[in-house]
Amino acid sequence: MAKRNMDSVVTIKDIAASCGVSISTVSNVLNGKKNKVSEEMAAKIRAEVERTGYRPNYLAKSLRAISTRTIGIIAEDLIMFSTPSIIEGVMNCCEEHGYNVVIENMRLFGRWSGKWMHDEALFQSALQPVLAKMDAMNVDGILYVGGHEHTVSKLTSANNLPIVMSYAIAADKEIPTFRLDDVSGGYDVTKYLVSKGHKRIGVIAGEYDNTHTVNRVIGIQKAMFEEGILFDPGLIEYATWNKAGGYKGMQKLIDKDITAVFCMSDAIASGAYAFLKEKGLEPGRDISVMGYDNQDISTFLTPEVTTMALPLEEIGYKAADKIIEMIDDPSAVDRDKTDIRIKSRLVERNSVKDISK
Amino acid sequence: MAKRNMDSVVTIKDIAASCGVSISTVSNVLNGKKNKVSEEMAAKIRAEVERTGYRPNYLAKSLRAISTRTIGIIAEDLIMFSTPSIIEGVMNCCEEHGYNVVIENMRLFGRWSGKWMHDEALFQSALQPVLAKMDAMNVDGILYVGGHEHTVSKLTSANNLPIVMSYAIAADKEIPTFRLDDVSGGYDVTKYLVSKGHKRIGVIAGEYDNTHTVNRVIGIQKAMFEEGILFDPGLIEYATWNKAGGYKGMQKLIDKDITAVFCMSDAIASGAYAFLKEKGLEPGRDISVMGYDNQDISTFLTPEVTTMALPLEEIGYKAADKIIEMIDDPSAVDRDKTDIRIKSRLVERNSVKDISK
Repeated sequence: MAKRNMDSVVTIKDIAASCGVSISTVSNVLNGKKNKVSEEMAAKIRAEVERTGYRPNYLAKSLRAISTRTIGIIAEDLIMFSTPSIIEGVMNCCEEHGYNVVIENMRLFGRWSGKWMHDEALFQSALQPVLAKMDAMNVDGILYVGGHEHTVSKLTSANNLPIVMSYAIAADKEIPTFRLDDVSGGYDVTKYLVSKGHKRIGVIAGEYDNTHTVNRVIGIQKAMFEEGILFDPGLIEYATWNKAGGYKGMQKLIDKDITAVFCMSDAIASGAYAFLKEKGLEPGRDISVMGYDNQDISTFLTPEVTTMALPLEEIGYKAADKIIEMIDDPSAVDRDKTDIRIKSRLVERNSVKDISK
Repeated sequence: MAKRNMDSVVTIKDIAASCGVSISTVSNVLNGKKNKVSEEMAAKIRAEVERTGYRPNYLAKSLRAISTRTIGIIAEDLIMFSTPSIIEGVMNCCEEHGYNVVIENMRLFGRWSGKWMHDEALFQSALQPVLAKMDAMNVDGILYVGGHEHTVSKLTSANNLPIVMSYAIAADKEIPTFRLDDVSGGYDVTKYLVSKGHKRIGVIAGEYDNTHTVNRVIGIQKAMFEEGILFDPGLIEYATWNKAGGYKGMQKLIDKDITAVFCMSDAIASGAYAFLKEKGLEPGRDISVMGYDNQDISTFLTPEVTTMALPLEEIGYKAADKIIEMIDDPSAVDRDKTDIRIKSRLVERNSVKDISK
């Protein structure tokens, strides 16, 4: 049998490079998707395709005959508060594109509490069977939904299905990953507090080695540098992500002459509230308090907590959009842009006082 | 071909009737399950089976060859707070019995907000396709997970698969249904408050035509009757199930000389808290407050809210146990006991004061 000359195969990457656009742009033009590319550029891309003899999606198209038009969702645990909203975003996107979903729930926390986080073998004993099941079910692509931000290894499909990661980190850096932009989160909170006149800002952070914590602290430092405010590491208390952590953190910060405290979760904020009220201090009047997450609790507390809304549905929607794009064209991954961070959104309520005037 | 004489077919019901036990007991004995039946009764049942020539599960056993050992879960919406915990219970039971699950998420609220609740055609446009999908996937049984308590019609499978309902009500009364025991919930809350010395008890209820509301009010009335306390309908305020409802309800009850208020959700309790604090009154000291649901928020409020924990995992577990029993033996449904109510559990915290001494 004659050996094919692989050198002659033109890839979507070549088209993108010679037209000076991203792979996604080429893919969009070839798939007739409405997008922001100009008609001139679209024409240029189509001309380049014709000139080079590029055959778009030759692998994907041959597989499409057996496509089930199904996305397989692997959830670490449905009981994590972030997971149902991410899945809602995924399914919303899938519905728009005429894709079905199947959901596999690994129940990592339900079965093993936090134990699996420090036991790679245990974790893999849950992951590998569901990956095999996805292959067996003949889904078109796999979308992984983390329960919190940690690194996931051995995320591959025996059938070489496209895979997208959300709300956790894939060890394989070629897997597109959609997660929180925590640097900009910490930055935005700090800029907001400074705009309200606060300069001595306490922070009740999560655990010090948690990636959310680390990135948000970097954002705080960026904002303070820009504002010309000395960053005082003595004003950061690392805590557990819950009410007890917030209570203890507030206890340690109370005598440090702060006017505001940034709590890295609404649960932490609830603990800060509890401590302040015990001392006869009113959040939002005597000390300003910011939360994070925009969980229900932020509206249930009095005064309602100014917080950052996590873009959970957006993460799910964009991750689904990417996996559908990859199903159409497996080469539609821009290897330099696989770590996609999505911003949280400030939700102003009543727990931050303007002391600038 | 000779016509079979159907009169001669002995059913599991006949065995149960002639031994004076339930269908489940017969089923358990025949399937060798460990249960509370005495060895004598087990022997009697086996003898009756032999005498009558009853062939257990003749239909189920013939189907078992093509069993996928899979339970299909139909969820109304994963974003409802109760749903992930119910599914956790279902999957826990399925794992113990070596069953897989597949999850279909109808996203009723996500797609249509509350509109589907008053539009049967819209609701059926979501339900019928997933029922058809369950048949197509060749699952062994269907477990429906409601997002709240309402009646579901046309819950049937073309392949006649066994179906179990949880957290909602099946219009078809032969479908086993596992839901909250709200009568005992209202009863237990009232008995508890009375035991702490409270006699004038305000109630901030949910909407007046909601089945949870109606049944809990019946429970309140039962307890008050037993305690010889006059039931004053003027002390019940019907409200929306949220913080705003609780705030308004408390506002109306505040001048009615009550010592305690029973809020039918923790969200409602958060509104009562907000109103009381605005008036300079302390929940749990000046007025006792009970919540319901045991959502996270009940521990985030200060003082922490004494509440009722919903038995969500238990509902899921028991519903799964029943569907697995029905897969083994489709006749294992006791038609007089299809409406199974599961009790909530009192969780004592710091929002109720003992004024009995």
